[in-house]
Amino acid sequence: MPNPKTALRILGILLMVEGFCMWLAVPVALIYGENDAPHFILAGAITAFTGFLSFFSTRKAKLEVTKRDGYVIVTSGWLAFSFFGTLPFVLTGSIPGFTNAFFETISGFTTTGASVLNNIEELSHGVLFWRSLTQWLGGMGIIVLTLVILPVLGIGGMQLFAAEVPGPMPDKLHPRVKETAKRLWSIYVIFTLAEVLLLWIGPMDLFDAVCHALTTMATGGYSTKQSSIAYWDSPYVHYVITVFMFLAGVNFTLSYFGFHLRFRKVWQNEEFRYYLGFIFVFTLLIAAGLFFSSNRGAEESFRTALFQVVSIITTTGYATDDYLLWMPALTTVIFVLMFFGGSAGSTGGGPKIMRIMILIKNSTQELKRLIHPNAVIPVRMNKIAVDNVVVTNVLAFLAFYVVIAVVSMVVMSLLGNDFETSIGAVAATLGNIGPGIGNVGPAANFNDIAVAGKWFLSFLMLVGRLELFTVLVLFSPAFWKD
Amino acid sequence: MPNPKTALRILGILLMVEGFCMWLAVPVALIYGENDAPHFILAGAITAFTGFLSFFSTRKAKLEVTKRDGYVIVTSGWLAFSFFGTLPFVLTGSIPGFTNAFFETISGFTTTGASVLNNIEELSHGVLFWRSLTQWLGGMGIIVLTLVILPVLGIGGMQLFAAEVPGPMPDKLHPRVKETAKRLWSIYVIFTLAEVLLLWIGPMDLFDAVCHALTTMATGGYSTKQSSIAYWDSPYVHYVITVFMFLAGVNFTLSYFGFHLRFRKVWQNEEFRYYLGFIFVFTLLIAAGLFFSSNRGAEESFRTALFQVVSIITTTGYATDDYLLWMPALTTVIFVLMFFGGSAGSTGGGPKIMRIMILIKNSTQELKRLIHPNAVIPVRMNKIAVDNVVVTNVLAFLAFYVVIAVVSMVVMSLLGNDFETSIGAVAATLGNIGPGIGNVGPAANFNDIAVAGKWFLSFLMLVGRLELFTVLVLFSPAFWKD
Repeated sequence: MPNPKTALRILGILLMVEGFCMWLAVPVALIYGENDAPHFILAGAITAFTGFLSFFSTRKAKLEVTKRDGYVIVTSGWLAFSFFGTLPFVLTGSIPGFTNAFFETISGFTTTGASVLNNIEELSHGVLFWRSLTQWLGGMGIIVLTLVILPVLGIGGMQLFAAEVPGPMPDKLHPRVKETAKRLWSIYVIFTLAEVLLLWIGPMDLFDAVCHALTTMATGGYSTKQSSIAYWDSPYVHYVITVFMFLAGVNFTLSYFGFHLRFRKVWQNEEFRYYLGFIFVFTLLIAAGLFFSSNRGAEESFRTALFQVVSIITTTGYATDDYLLWMPALTTVIFVLMFFGGSAGSTGGGPKIMRIMILIKNSTQELKRLIHPNAVIPVRMNKIAVDNVVVTNVLAFLAFYVVIAVVSMVVMSLLGNDFETSIGAVAATLGNIGPGIGNVGPAANFNDIAVAGKWFLSFLMLVGRLELFTVLVLFSPAFWKD
Repeated sequence: MPNPKTALRILGILLMVEGFCMWLAVPVALIYGENDAPHFILAGAITAFTGFLSFFSTRKAKLEVTKRDGYVIVTSGWLAFSFFGTLPFVLTGSIPGFTNAFFETISGFTTTGASVLNNIEELSHGVLFWRSLTQWLGGMGIIVLTLVILPVLGIGGMQLFAAEVPGPMPDKLHPRVKETAKRLWSIYVIFTLAEVLLLWIGPMDLFDAVCHALTTMATGGYSTKQSSIAYWDSPYVHYVITVFMFLAGVNFTLSYFGFHLRFRKVWQNEEFRYYLGFIFVFTLLIAAGLFFSSNRGAEESFRTALFQVVSIITTTGYATDDYLLWMPALTTVIFVLMFFGGSAGSTGGGPKIMRIMILIKNSTQELKRLIHPNAVIPVRMNKIAVDNVVVTNVLAFLAFYVVIAVVSMVVMSLLGNDFETSIGAVAATLGNIGPGIGNVGPAANFNDIAVAGKWFLSFLMLVGRLELFTVLVLFSPAFWKD
């Protein structure tokens, strides 16, 4: 049985951190002379105080975190952040209705970027800053989750990366989390600062540069503008953001190697090469399609294709164009791309390149196995044979992903959405992308989805972001026994 | 390397059989006083003579069939049947254009039932009979393929059924094929005759009864009427056909046990119980939806739901109603049902209940494995632990199925079809169902698909019908080496 006291104690710490982060919106409000600073102070105080109570009341709890505690803490951590994270929206009255506020907040902390807002520009600077910050904090959580916690829990093949991660090798979770997190977060911070700088020296002002840097590195995709990145009709802005979306979709361990000039190690990483390959192929396909089917020039076709492909494959969800207005085949290609996702160990969501890669490799190996039934033909990654258990884990994960997507599509249909909107909303939230197809495309938002649908999609964002099993295991009765 | 002489010799025998079968249309043409009897005689003669030449010219070939020969014979057998099977359509001028004739024929032999015909009723009785017969022959082939040949080849988990099949246990393929085929075919024939009788004593005439019995038992779905079974506004016809579609979707080995009154053995079969369960749940859902969203009465809602659910899950594809006109959520449910398929060892296509069952079981076991990482938690079927290799086979099969479906959807989009038509046409042909969604729904047909699209969908029908790997393995260079 998981230990609720341990969970409450760690949640307490996390909520105190969240409360402090809310106060970061106070100087923003003051600088822009907006009158909602008291709301942020109150929101932060409520959150931090709740955290303090939770931490203080469990001071006798043991801090030995078992695997089961791990599942409980991760899932309830994301939920708690999302519940308390609504406070700035609710207290300032920026988002009417708790359902909408919760949807917007969990969409932030899960780095999804699906929004219910019809007029983003009318929000105050403080609220916009908090909205961007939810994604950046979510991204920090994801880096630790996928590179430190999940490998230990052994979910969906993530154990493949346990040996890869720099930092002291694990005996206990605790020191490892701390040391590794510090190293990877420093890269996250450096990338964010670099993007702020590069956007700021371009046509963006400092505020927009900061907000977009926060949501790019998290592959979140919240923009300060209703029309997303299309607001800036500037190739410079498009290319800069493309580069940082790309980096956010790379395993942060590889970026760590890159910073230490170990480029051979980066290039030897097969997932990285697949990631490049997918981007190359999809960009080429869409750029050619746009060039021949519209009156865009070569550079604009390429830039538009590259931006949208990188935005979708990394599950960021920014838009410089509405892909629903392209020729239908290109929209279909974008839809398919929604089932790829970033690299494992990046902030990107979706099934992940690593799993798609193992799927492809195992499929071709399966054919070889039929031809040579008595030979042992393993799946190899980075030239090393992958344990069959891991392959089964990965396939089970992908099967789960498809089953959840299909069941969810039926649920969304039963809640009154048409076929394309159902399938699009599910792909966009389960994959933590943001915009989908149908009525929830890049030029629209999720405001018109019914209340029940919004709660259901919120659940999908959580399930998708936490690699399915982390959440679903909690629904298993066996989990709560002995 | 496969032995081409062995393949040619067996293909020769098969083509002679096909030629004789074409002559069965001659008496039909004569009875109805139609003037196309000479065309059927010629078509049969060309086919049988080609077969004879192929058989005669390879009389020195060894008849030891290796596994690789098996793949070649199965795939080229279905292709040869489909090519020569066009002759009655082409020579009588019933279907204009070779592409259309080939599409209609391979759709018959793969028991798909996707048609290009805009006016089925204008065809002569002889041609309609041949069209129905292609499906019935295809069904016979499938029974042998799935219950005798595939278990030996070890494709996609079908080896699970090797031990189940009645008949002498295998040392060599040959005596086993013969004896088992005889037993299972006799059930196929008995069911077909029973359906002819029951339809004939109802409102159908003998000709329609025969044609529909042939295409029901094959889960093919070709009708002699443009409006399919909706032509008969008779609950009796609907229920009779529902029962036989259901039986055609059951593992024929189980029917064999049923005929020997070993009902406990039938009920103990878990796949059978899942099959019943899926039909029950989907029928209930759709019947309730129809009852509350339309002015159908309770019986009509139930009957319409049951018919369409059984028709789609068994991949027959008959229609008594146009599910595209239902409330959108119910259409989505039907679309999801297209990815189930009949029982393994039935004539039904699609991924098959057995694989969906293993997918579901492995998913729940995967959750248990996360909770108890050190316990061995196998997937059980019929209370027996399933070998992990078989589970991986099944998951690899399903993964392949999804990948092929997704890639094909993109191909169909690039060939100019809209999103729903692309996804619907692929689901309907890869799953050997017949009607899809979008522009290829039950009230429409595949005539408007471009030529390239028709050839591509023909390929999908073949790939889907032959359990993917049987065809795909031929594209592997390793297959043709030593």
